Amino acid sequence: MIKFKIAKPEQEVKQYLQEQIDNLTKPKGALGRLEDLAMQIGTIQQSLHPKLEKPNHVVFAGDHGIVDEGVSAAPKAVTYQMIANFWNGGAGINFLCRQHNFKLQVVDAGVDYDFADNQPIIKAKIRKSTRNFLHEAAMTKDEMNLAIERSAELVQSIYDSGCNVISFGEMGIGNTSPSAVWMHYFTGIPLSECVGAGCDHTGEIVAHKLKILTQACNNYKGDASTEDIMAYFGGYEMVMAVGAMLKAAELKMVIIVDGFIMTNCMLAASKLYPDVLEYAVFSHQGDEAGHKLVLQKLNAKPILKLDFRLGEGTGAVCAYPIIDSAVRMINEMGTFKEVKVSKYF
Amino acid sequence: MIKFKIAKPEQEVKQYLQEQIDNLTKPKGALGRLEDLAMQIGTIQQSLHPKLEKPNHVVFAGDHGIVDEGVSAAPKAVTYQMIANFWNGGAGINFLCRQHNFKLQVVDAGVDYDFADNQPIIKAKIRKSTRNFLHEAAMTKDEMNLAIERSAELVQSIYDSGCNVISFGEMGIGNTSPSAVWMHYFTGIPLSECVGAGCDHTGEIVAHKLKILTQACNNYKGDASTEDIMAYFGGYEMVMAVGAMLKAAELKMVIIVDGFIMTNCMLAASKLYPDVLEYAVFSHQGDEAGHKLVLQKLNAKPILKLDFRLGEGTGAVCAYPIIDSAVRMINEMGTFKEVKVSKYF
Repeated sequence: MIKFKIAKPEQEVKQYLQEQIDNLTKPKGALGRLEDLAMQIGTIQQSLHPKLEKPNHVVFAGDHGIVDEGVSAAPKAVTYQMIANFWNGGAGINFLCRQHNFKLQVVDAGVDYDFADNQPIIKAKIRKSTRNFLHEAAMTKDEMNLAIERSAELVQSIYDSGCNVISFGEMGIGNTSPSAVWMHYFTGIPLSECVGAGCDHTGEIVAHKLKILTQACNNYKGDASTEDIMAYFGGYEMVMAVGAMLKAAELKMVIIVDGFIMTNCMLAASKLYPDVLEYAVFSHQGDEAGHKLVLQKLNAKPILKLDFRLGEGTGAVCAYPIIDSAVRMINEMGTFKEVKVSKYF
Repeated sequence: MIKFKIAKPEQEVKQYLQEQIDNLTKPKGALGRLEDLAMQIGTIQQSLHPKLEKPNHVVFAGDHGIVDEGVSAAPKAVTYQMIANFWNGGAGINFLCRQHNFKLQVVDAGVDYDFADNQPIIKAKIRKSTRNFLHEAAMTKDEMNLAIERSAELVQSIYDSGCNVISFGEMGIGNTSPSAVWMHYFTGIPLSECVGAGCDHTGEIVAHKLKILTQACNNYKGDASTEDIMAYFGGYEMVMAVGAMLKAAELKMVIIVDGFIMTNCMLAASKLYPDVLEYAVFSHQGDEAGHKLVLQKLNAKPILKLDFRLGEGTGAVCAYPIIDSAVRMINEMGTFKEVKVSKYF
């Protein structure tokens, strides 16, 4: 795997940020989580006047061999169909990107469909769907490394366009299954607490899914290293997201983390490079059963809790205005030095 | 008190809204709270294509006689000083209104300060500060009724300008005290659970505040009717907010409810006209101790929980983009009828 240079931001700026935040014309701490976010982003950017520039959202898409085992309520074909919906602007992620002025890019990481040259998708396909990890590794290490290189290159090009705040989402029927297995191996939480209903709103699928995934874990004979778990059980869209997060952290970008799948990608990234978490803003706690637990494991305090379970990065982009509010707070509010308000707080 | 004509919206539209929401290209229920908000706003507006027009925020300001008893960490003068800060654009509410394109109006309901004619505040002063309710009624019924008339007129004029979504905030040093007493009488929750720290981030003030407010309740010899409690313990900015909420509901506007004080104003409004709650969108759960409890009493599910305790209506305006997302969702997402996505959900 390519190496990333991820440094923990210098911490000295924090005292100056705290002083700045405490001097804003409000009682100390009265803007709660906005103050935490301003502190984090100011630290990432090493600035008392942080800025969010050209927000960019990337959806990685891929299909999963494990879907052959009936672990998802939806057929594989929906991955491609939803990509077509993204192009037409009709999906959840589209209206949110329009609302918050995000550039949206969709990447073919491994969709089981042959895209035409003129279709508006970034062509980075590793393979048409992963293999079925009930019986064999979902992908080879070489495939994983190639995926990580490709997504890192993409993030570099986005950074070069002037973006410093990036979010990631996914489209891949069946991808709560590999995510649950990653979560299980990377946190030690029992598989039964990592498995949820995915897109099946009835919840009827959970028992069967747990049975298949338990069997897959029993069949697994690898060395249980982070990289081996990632490749054996992962999805191409998921390993691309990991590479993208690592590159974004190397470039000191603010990374907005979406729901269950993206949180598990951040978890995997943090197993490789713990300091990636310094750059992560956790946007929401979704409705998928295991999400709350993996967030707790990461000591993450999500901004929103709106019972989303859609994916695509919808929670990340929906939370953006709150992150923007934090940055505006520290830049735009008057201070007790400037304004004639008694500092009673 | 003037009468309001507040009707519960016709409920028949809900089945059509549900059908519309379930046909959007996402798993059923996958956008969680956005779906609830779209349902509520569609019902208020009796439309499958609800719209939010010209959002408007009104800050009612007033001072409180009870502050003489040392129930607040801040001196009375801060009420006026913060109003000057609003004019200069340096307060919390200012950057939020700029961010979300809200028109901001500040109303002098009863500030203990003589504003000059050329100062940019809506002049609706009832009296310079309420009386000290430890010893006597904070205001007369006539004063309360006048306050309600004035705020109702203001909301009518805002509505006439083309606004259909309105939020309210307050500025009034000491106003967590009257709010706590209202909450106690209107919910039956013990006063000790209604009293919090207000703007005192140390929390040291709570014991003294509870002692004074307990004594005030013991001294009270009125008939404990809603109107009597409102007048005896209320603030001018608070009764104006009640009148404004009732008028907004009469006009079928969407009302965004802010934190502890505004929630207690909505509580009082609902004691007079229960159907006002149909128009109320609860924006956030703040950090003031009693807020969670009064929200529960109202069966309110706040959108945000960001540990705010600032007032001014900051939570209401901060939550606006989420409400906007809900409306965009129902208007902008493709449906399974229009888009070729298998309806597997």
